Amino acid sequence: MAPLAQPVSNLIDAFSRLPGIGPKSASRLAYFLLRSDEEIALSLASALQELKAETLFCGLCHNIADKDPCAICDNEQRDRSIICVVEEPLDVQAIERTGSFQGLYHVLHGAISPVEGIGPDDLKLHELLNRLQPGRQPDDVETRELLVATNPNLEGEATAMYIARLIKPLGLRVTRLARGLPTGGDLEYADEMTLSNALAGRLEM
Amino acid sequence: MAPLAQPVSNLIDAFSRLPGIGPKSASRLAYFLLRSDEEIALSLASALQELKAETLFCGLCHNIADKDPCAICDNEQRDRSIICVVEEPLDVQAIERTGSFQGLYHVLHGAISPVEGIGPDDLKLHELLNRLQPGRQPDDVETRELLVATNPNLEGEATAMYIARLIKPLGLRVTRLARGLPTGGDLEYADEMTLSNALAGRLEM
Repeated sequence: MAPLAQPVSNLIDAFSRLPGIGPKSASRLAYFLLRSDEEIALSLASALQELKAETLFCGLCHNIADKDPCAICDNEQRDRSIICVVEEPLDVQAIERTGSFQGLYHVLHGAISPVEGIGPDDLKLHELLNRLQPGRQPDDVETRELLVATNPNLEGEATAMYIARLIKPLGLRVTRLARGLPTGGDLEYADEMTLSNALAGRLEM
Repeated sequence: MAPLAQPVSNLIDAFSRLPGIGPKSASRLAYFLLRSDEEIALSLASALQELKAETLFCGLCHNIADKDPCAICDNEQRDRSIICVVEEPLDVQAIERTGSFQGLYHVLHGAISPVEGIGPDDLKLHELLNRLQPGRQPDDVETRELLVATNPNLEGEATAMYIARLIKPLGLRVTRLARGLPTGGDLEYADEMTLSNALAGRLEM
């Protein structure tokens, strides 16, 4: 087989290292960029170079940010009495998109997973405990509620349980996201676990 | 909604401009790169910057290359008497992967498509005609056969017909790829057009 032009195969290799991009999609991307305006490739290149150089982790909530404290922790309009605990920065974005939560966040950067060898010490749990000590919050507003919004899977559940056991002795209210049928879903296609949770959590109309 | 860190949203925007990458995949890619070694992002960045800076089009076959003439046109081992006409550089790679073609290529960079306003003058057809004039080939080997390997769709067919009409008066043999059932396919799922072509092109056993 004739060799591909070296810069093209370098780019295909680099794209293939990203999750969800196989060799076929990688070459399609490379040839798309070859055909299109050079600006598209160059703006992606500079965004990649700036990614780590210009981001940091917020010292309070550990979310990815461009300043410390981040825009959420620094926002005086937000309700400082409730902290939502999530696994990953993407989860913060998902909750922010709803516009239904006005409190602060705490990003654990993972979930407890014995299979993958991730224990409580690998998560930002010490940092969470520190935040909850009286007088440690900015503006001295005391946290009254911890909303645990880990993923609704095995690791997320284990992490939520662990956090609940850890935090409840501090006298805080510990809550978690409701379980039930997803909106837009079809009852007959709901899995048994989801349906059981929806039955157990049934509400007055 | 709280603003995303600017470098992260820049990267998500840049990824979203690529074909087949929506906003969700783009943010997954951005957060993957944030979590992983900086080298992955930087090697992709430099591959992107080198892409256009270090590639050119072969002056003979118009394929993407890192030198002119390209490695295929420059290879003395290849059969200079047959030229395979394809729509895109990716098609050259597909044919090279088979290892079944030893001739040269000619990349049209598109196909005739009245709907998209692409006419014969937008393709590398003048360049093809020029190549086929006696004495214009390197080493003075005359082209004897033109294998038209445009895509088996409406635009590809129209382009193939146009090329055949253009080239046949020059006295060359003009061939095209065989049509029939794809290997590994299931006869009962073959579409009518494919099956008709397979019947019409039936071969002696």
